[in-house]
Amino acid sequence: MKSKIKIGILGCTGAVGQKLISLLYNHPMFEIAELAASENSAGKTFEKAVLWKEQIPIPSSVKSLIVKNCLPKFESKLLFSGLDSRVAGNIEMELAKYGYIIISNSKNHRMEESVPLIIPEVNSSHFGLIKSQKKKWNSEGFIVTNPNCSTIILAISLAPLYKKFGLKKIIVTTLQAVSGAGYPGVPSYDILGNVIPFIKDEEDKIEKETLKIFGKFKKNKITFADLKISALCNRVPVKNGHTLSVSVETEKKVPKEKILNSIVNFNKTNNNSLHSSPKNIIDFFEQFDRPQPMFDINNHNGMGITIGNIRKCNVLDWKFTVLGHNLIRGAAGTAVLNAEWLIKNNLTLQYLRNKFNINGAELK
Amino acid sequence: MKSKIKIGILGCTGAVGQKLISLLYNHPMFEIAELAASENSAGKTFEKAVLWKEQIPIPSSVKSLIVKNCLPKFESKLLFSGLDSRVAGNIEMELAKYGYIIISNSKNHRMEESVPLIIPEVNSSHFGLIKSQKKKWNSEGFIVTNPNCSTIILAISLAPLYKKFGLKKIIVTTLQAVSGAGYPGVPSYDILGNVIPFIKDEEDKIEKETLKIFGKFKKNKITFADLKISALCNRVPVKNGHTLSVSVETEKKVPKEKILNSIVNFNKTNNNSLHSSPKNIIDFFEQFDRPQPMFDINNHNGMGITIGNIRKCNVLDWKFTVLGHNLIRGAAGTAVLNAEWLIKNNLTLQYLRNKFNINGAELK
Amino acid sequence: MKSKIKIGILGCTGAVGQKLISLLYNHPMFEIAELAASENSAGKTFEKAVLWKEQIPIPSSVKSLIVKNCLPKFESKLLFSGLDSRVAGNIEMELAKYGYIIISNSKNHRMEESVPLIIPEVNSSHFGLIKSQKKKWNSEGFIVTNPNCSTIILAISLAPLYKKFGLKKIIVTTLQAVSGAGYPGVPSYDILGNVIPFIKDEEDKIEKETLKIFGKFKKNKITFADLKISALCNRVPVKNGHTLSVSVETEKKVPKEKILNSIVNFNKTNNNSLHSSPKNIIDFFEQFDRPQPMFDINNHNGMGITIGNIRKCNVLDWKFTVLGHNLIRGAAGTAVLNAEWLIKNNLTLQYLRNKFNINGAELK
Amino acid sequence: MKSKIKIGILGCTGAVGQKLISLLYNHPMFEIAELAASENSAGKTFEKAVLWKEQIPIPSSVKSLIVKNCLPKFESKLLFSGLDSRVAGNIEMELAKYGYIIISNSKNHRMEESVPLIIPEVNSSHFGLIKSQKKKWNSEGFIVTNPNCSTIILAISLAPLYKKFGLKKIIVTTLQAVSGAGYPGVPSYDILGNVIPFIKDEEDKIEKETLKIFGKFKKNKITFADLKISALCNRVPVKNGHTLSVSVETEKKVPKEKILNSIVNFNKTNNNSLHSSPKNIIDFFEQFDRPQPMFDINNHNGMGITIGNIRKCNVLDWKFTVLGHNLIRGAAGTAVLNAEWLIKNNLTLQYLRNKFNINGAELK
Repeated sequence: MKSKIKIGILGCTGAVGQKLISLLYNHPMFEIAELAASENSAGKTFEKAVLWKEQIPIPSSVKSLIVKNCLPKFESKLLFSGLDSRVAGNIEMELAKYGYIIISNSKNHRMEESVPLIIPEVNSSHFGLIKSQKKKWNSEGFIVTNPNCSTIILAISLAPLYKKFGLKKIIVTTLQAVSGAGYPGVPSYDILGNVIPFIKDEEDKIEKETLKIFGKFKKNKITFADLKISALCNRVPVKNGHTLSVSVETEKKVPKEKILNSIVNFNKTNNNSLHSSPKNIIDFFEQFDRPQPMFDINNHNGMGITIGNIRKCNVLDWKFTVLGHNLIRGAAGTAVLNAEWLIKNNLTLQYLRNKFNINGAELK
Repeated sequence: MKSKIKIGILGCTGAVGQKLISLLYNHPMFEIAELAASENSAGKTFEKAVLWKEQIPIPSSVKSLIVKNCLPKFESKLLFSGLDSRVAGNIEMELAKYGYIIISNSKNHRMEESVPLIIPEVNSSHFGLIKSQKKKWNSEGFIVTNPNCSTIILAISLAPLYKKFGLKKIIVTTLQAVSGAGYPGVPSYDILGNVIPFIKDEEDKIEKETLKIFGKFKKNKITFADLKISALCNRVPVKNGHTLSVSVETEKKVPKEKILNSIVNFNKTNNNSLHSSPKNIIDFFEQFDRPQPMFDINNHNGMGITIGNIRKCNVLDWKFTVLGHNLIRGAAGTAVLNAEWLIKNNLTLQYLRNKFNINGAELK
Repeated sequence: MKSKIKIGILGCTGAVGQKLISLLYNHPMFEIAELAASENSAGKTFEKAVLWKEQIPIPSSVKSLIVKNCLPKFESKLLFSGLDSRVAGNIEMELAKYGYIIISNSKNHRMEESVPLIIPEVNSSHFGLIKSQKKKWNSEGFIVTNPNCSTIILAISLAPLYKKFGLKKIIVTTLQAVSGAGYPGVPSYDILGNVIPFIKDEEDKIEKETLKIFGKFKKNKITFADLKISALCNRVPVKNGHTLSVSVETEKKVPKEKILNSIVNFNKTNNNSLHSSPKNIIDFFEQFDRPQPMFDINNHNGMGITIGNIRKCNVLDWKFTVLGHNLIRGAAGTAVLNAEWLIKNNLTLQYLRNKFNINGAELK
Repeated sequence: MKSKIKIGILGCTGAVGQKLISLLYNHPMFEIAELAASENSAGKTFEKAVLWKEQIPIPSSVKSLIVKNCLPKFESKLLFSGLDSRVAGNIEMELAKYGYIIISNSKNHRMEESVPLIIPEVNSSHFGLIKSQKKKWNSEGFIVTNPNCSTIILAISLAPLYKKFGLKKIIVTTLQAVSGAGYPGVPSYDILGNVIPFIKDEEDKIEKETLKIFGKFKKNKITFADLKISALCNRVPVKNGHTLSVSVETEKKVPKEKILNSIVNFNKTNNNSLHSSPKNIIDFFEQFDRPQPMFDINNHNGMGITIGNIRKCNVLDWKFTVLGHNLIRGAAGTAVLNAEWLIKNNLTLQYLRNKFNINGAELK
């Protein structure tokens, strides 16, 4: 029997923390050994500390774990973080300096020069930043982040075009689900039958993070992509699933078949490469009226995004709809992929082996 | 006491027809004398024929009117049409040829060369088309149309910029309410907690109608505006009120204060010019998170649109949110304004006077 | 010109507090002179302290008022309270002992022996308790409470039957709007497309408060009504308006016409008796499918309740639907009526006159 | 390899028809061989005829089936019917007389004396009616019906109490999902943010069908149960899942533990008895605020109902919440169980064997 790598989850009671538990409690490589959250929760059993909102019942393996404080006393060296951004900055930094590997969904360190901001299928070369990060902090620990939920969905949809034809301009309007605001998040009084045309800092995140994701890793640093991107963000009364209306201008002008082919080829390169990778990272619809949250958010267990209605744009070149599950592909799921990539690529293997006395061969 | 002009309403049982009744039953110039609809309704009292969905009870003055067929036998010469587009084309044409004045919300004749497509505050010069329309059909009757609901809201928001600085490119993503699809319209099973990223023909209407609205009337015809406009349309679980996320590129580059000033000035020119004109045609919000359907659709009784969060766009020049009540400002309300404009400007006065033996002075 | 009575509003930033402001800022008898709330808000202008959720903009007269602490330093002697029940108990009690008149919507003192729990149209005789309350606390101040939102709507619907025919058993199932939970209240993630079949303490409040309301005031105390009442409470994704499905067993068995007559007569006795009284306290629908929140919550400005579909019950005698606006008739509106009743009936007049140097005649 | 029984589905394009397909396309005993619907659909491939609303894609095995008319020309002798009640009456009757076995979800024949109305776990003895039905119509064919969606959920929740302690009175208020009205069903304009306190004929169905279900089968007929039951029905903006607030009076008075035990025992008798039976027919929650549609409708693939918050009732004896998936357990799923029961109990075996040349042993 393989021994699993013990991991901890920071911010375990939040929406992303709960989703991380759902994705990891039965994972073949990882074992949820420790849970941590804020003072309010620390010291309680997870069952008492959490307002559990996942569809599955609380996994029995974590029910009675005692929630810890976010102090550098974890036995697990691999920590997933779904911490609230009001506290994530310092906690994650301190833990990394202590030697912990932090797989973070929080926004705080995403744009730091030495911190990789990664969707493995899109820019895994950026993992290369880890080396300089370790050096900078003089620690075996480091932080790897995944982008904002809308950014991930957008960036995956753009990746085939960007890589194949180049992109010059992007305008994206988002229709974002309430779960993107965490829990308790958006009060029902504000959103029932309503649209809120503003999400704090969201447009800025989409506009900046995308440039880093599509940036080039060279000489131990990222040169940001030379794109113009503009985001207009809205909250809508949908539970899960961000829908994006996207217009793009490509560098190279190509017919629609080539656009579709680029998606098919992107899938070929990326499918199933990691344990949690979807069968197809992008599914494409011929029906005009898809994708829709009610049908498509759980595509490939929420790890695949869906694109529909690719059509000519009068202003830029093409326009289309893209949808993804904001808590899975847009957050916890991509974090899990990032961790799986690290393991698969042996980047952290030696370190984890020493700490855990694990036979490297077993991890592959 | 003034005598009122008797009017008829075609398609009286539909969503737009009901809204027309709500706006006209107590109108100082018009008296709802006749109601007409499809075979299913004809012969019944209005109360029996209609599934009334307005907030106010059915006005007592129309309750017992017998719904007529849409045949050219109306005593009223001024007819408002909220007919379904599957039948509006022929019916309206035939009635116009018979000498009736048709104020239509239906899409069928909007793009015809001799038919004006009008928002009075934006392009009232286009009423000049009536003359050639009458000549073409050799009839005293004619058709005046108002644009599609989303187009009206968009065009009003763009009008100050277009007139003052010129516009080159527009990308607009819509988040449209279910009432825009009429009644019964969108099945609840399709839209509860969902987004539908497609509305049949809607993008095309927005893209084409806007060019006609901003066109120049010269030598008895409209030269379309030279703009690039691209629309991306979505249905959201909102009852009333279309929210639009808009990006624009202006010809002349100006700072934000000038943008705001252009709105203020546009209001000055247009406010209160007609009986049903809003006090402000455009209200502007300083809060980032407005306008919102739950607060703002009934602004100035639904006749004013609201704009918020004007900010720089990385791809074009400016981006903002605009909201309007799709059934009032976006449909029935603009139709009513069109009729009021005709009366005020004596265009139809002589004709109506002869037919109705009305003292012209009273109509002003 | 009449001078108005200066009043204060405790808990001014909450949902009920905001509704009190909406109902009182333009009131002919009262002037909002002071606002108070928790530590978080105290010291800020109201505009800065509040997340304003009412349809009307913040009244200019309260915008710049500095929010005070809830300490016994108010100049106004008449205080409306929409305080959170976690703090209302002590604050209201202390203020009453200091001599303030508290018109409270909070639950804390409702069931206290000497505190009247009043819907003026239903049990105004209970104001008689004030005398013993003053004696008990040896203060000119006192507390008057209004019932829980669901209780008010239910009790008004039952009052005609109870007074005319007697009631033995009541089973009521509620479908309650989210605004009943205050703001931020119910997280959207919990209620979008969902039903929550539990509202903390709500069933208990309905079952107990109703017995007190229908109790007899004799010898300075209330003898509770001898009824059996059972409540089953649900939260539904509705913004405003509690819908109640009610079954009742009357003491005297009567035909449906008598039931309807009792409502008509109840209205005759109560309509328009106070400034904020609705034209009809109860409106009755013949349509089976009414009342509905989307049509009927704003009946008589939200002060009237609506009843529909009265029909035979196989288990008890009659069943029907009743709907009311939970924040207006079910909370702030009834509080305002309670204050108006006090003024109209001179109960507090002498006191207020002395304190405010007001000419009594003007208050009537 | 087992040979499967070929079956047909009438009303295949409707909400229940689609759910039947979802439940049957991969069923070990049945093979969907024929699909039928109205004139509008007949002659088209299923894919063209249907607006598919299920989560799974259209099963490939039915995609290209040509939809037939509902005429007695089916090769399959076992027909499931999700026909609209406007046509189901005659069609089902005629087909039964021709020798077809009809497993119907339609309301039309439910209350006919010789037609069994069955939830297999509750009243399988009623299958005994088939004999007299065959005799009456002089046909090998017959109709078996399942109850109305709300009735099924209610009746299952009551069965343990009824069988163990007897029931005298039941009051039930329903909060029903929109999918219960079929497709397109409830217009979104009517139900977004609203409650509709009326569902045509629904209260009557619940009140009458329950008495038949709990009736005794003796001497080839059903003697209805001697219960008083009253239903109050509401539509709420929920997609799937009917929530019921129930109060009951038992004949024998028992403490809560015995109530809970009766559920446990009822489960023991019924679990897993048929291929599609849920692991638990009733799951019970200790949390006060469950069951909820968002968490619990898919319990045991939608075949199990969930009960919560059993508590004392002041008017009757006990009150509780019960929830079930209206399209699965409340319709198509119970129909499938009825068919499975027939096969398992050999009632139709000889007949089907002769017609299909099937080895009986294989069917067990």
